[in-house]
Amino acid sequence: MKLFRFGAHEQEKPGVISFDDTRLDVSAFGEDYDEKFFATDGTTRLAEWLQHNSTFCPEVPAETRLGACVARPSKIVCIGLNYAKHAAESGAQPPAEPVVFFKATSALCGPNDQVIIPRNSVKTDWEVELAVVIGKRTSYVEESEAMDYVAGYALHNDYSERAFQLEMGGQWVKGKSNDTFAPLGPYLVTADEIPEPHNLRLWLSLNGEMVQDSNTSDMIFYIPKIISYLSQFMTLLPGDVISTGTPSGVGLGMKPPKYLQPNDVVELGIEGLGTQKQEAIAWKAL
Amino acid sequence: MKLFRFGAHEQEKPGVISFDDTRLDVSAFGEDYDEKFFATDGTTRLAEWLQHNSTFCPEVPAETRLGACVARPSKIVCIGLNYAKHAAESGAQPPAEPVVFFKATSALCGPNDQVIIPRNSVKTDWEVELAVVIGKRTSYVEESEAMDYVAGYALHNDYSERAFQLEMGGQWVKGKSNDTFAPLGPYLVTADEIPEPHNLRLWLSLNGEMVQDSNTSDMIFYIPKIISYLSQFMTLLPGDVISTGTPSGVGLGMKPPKYLQPNDVVELGIEGLGTQKQEAIAWKAL
Repeated sequence: MKLFRFGAHEQEKPGVISFDDTRLDVSAFGEDYDEKFFATDGTTRLAEWLQHNSTFCPEVPAETRLGACVARPSKIVCIGLNYAKHAAESGAQPPAEPVVFFKATSALCGPNDQVIIPRNSVKTDWEVELAVVIGKRTSYVEESEAMDYVAGYALHNDYSERAFQLEMGGQWVKGKSNDTFAPLGPYLVTADEIPEPHNLRLWLSLNGEMVQDSNTSDMIFYIPKIISYLSQFMTLLPGDVISTGTPSGVGLGMKPPKYLQPNDVVELGIEGLGTQKQEAIAWKAL
Repeated sequence: MKLFRFGAHEQEKPGVISFDDTRLDVSAFGEDYDEKFFATDGTTRLAEWLQHNSTFCPEVPAETRLGACVARPSKIVCIGLNYAKHAAESGAQPPAEPVVFFKATSALCGPNDQVIIPRNSVKTDWEVELAVVIGKRTSYVEESEAMDYVAGYALHNDYSERAFQLEMGGQWVKGKSNDTFAPLGPYLVTADEIPEPHNLRLWLSLNGEMVQDSNTSDMIFYIPKIISYLSQFMTLLPGDVISTGTPSGVGLGMKPPKYLQPNDVVELGIEGLGTQKQEAIAWKAL
């Protein structure tokens, strides 16, 4: 099943892509794709509901804005330097254990929203990533059982302001959390439809030129390890998003480094998880 | 006004401490102390509601468990090394600009709940801190206007596992986010009752021995600076918690370092914001 959300920012409604690729408005189901939905096995309940109700669901017009494919979760956990070539281009050694940081959930936006270059930013960078959405609450889970806690997968662009992240003292979260820095979607694909999450091509282009092009098989730490590891340090809640790191080809790693300018166009995709397209714009006072 | 929450974990109900120190159950108001409550000026609405309804509110029995004084916010933002002597005891220079990290909101718990020493933890440490609760959404706010965005203040113990935080690679969030690592309360005191948040004594004792004893006047970065600074990097939402750093006297800074053992008792307080008491217990499989 493919779940998406559509409509105005922070007023999104739930949708489902049907087997014939029609985008159905499932507002009548009465739930958003949030912690409660996942905690109560919402995807199974929604599938059953659709068997009786899909013919009554309105179609979502093609031009409708898409939102983030899950409602604001309790946390977005990101794994840093999880592809060896990206660690090298960042000037770092491959990590001995997963590098973990958080991204503010207020950064979430739709897959095709404009990305806002923050005020005083000169180093806004891109990062195509495979995001895992947690389906059930867990802590201290073993690797062998970790995949049971995955609701599905989505495409994520982990936008990063490198000066904020690396040159202002302290922790990376400063460069990861501006508004529009977390486009998520176009849709969440439930885990049953992605039997091999560690063999998916992922790519990102800047103004039509391919700059990231890799495969999730190149991850240093695989998803079961990541989930088990994280669950030693925090309880993972239904709907939580784990972003599994980016391959090489970010602006920081170019010689010379290259960062987003207004009017730049970023496109990205993961095999089976759809594509995103963002136009960069400069921050403006409202 | 003093707002608290009571009842079983994750099923808390809202309460208010009345002028004669009675603890009133205000469930009948029909709202929890969450993002929506603060975004819609809930404290003013609740005060008006109480004028007509307080006599009908049941009293909360003295033995009732208290929960975190705000419902789970979008984020807990923490400021690191914000007292000069604590920076020194941590082996760090006083920072040139605020050090920022996040704490998982799933770590929130009540002020007198037991603190669980995580599995494989040998360095669980304490940090008494003044927490600021945001009242209105803001980004790019000037220091001169920042205090208009404060709903109130609360006592916070920013529990930290130093090996997870400092010895496992990467970012601090790993050592800040275990369950029960964020006791918040006993109550939120609205900003009008704390005219001088930069002149409050704060203290923490371990098994009856005072180990932290300082004043918020010793903060390196004051609250208007912190709010304005953070708002350059992320949108602050109503109900968000900002923890403003801890003074010297943590276990990490002792010679030799000293960390929590099962049955240890931690007590802490801030002038005007009440006290907390936690007994340490070892993690056990359920």
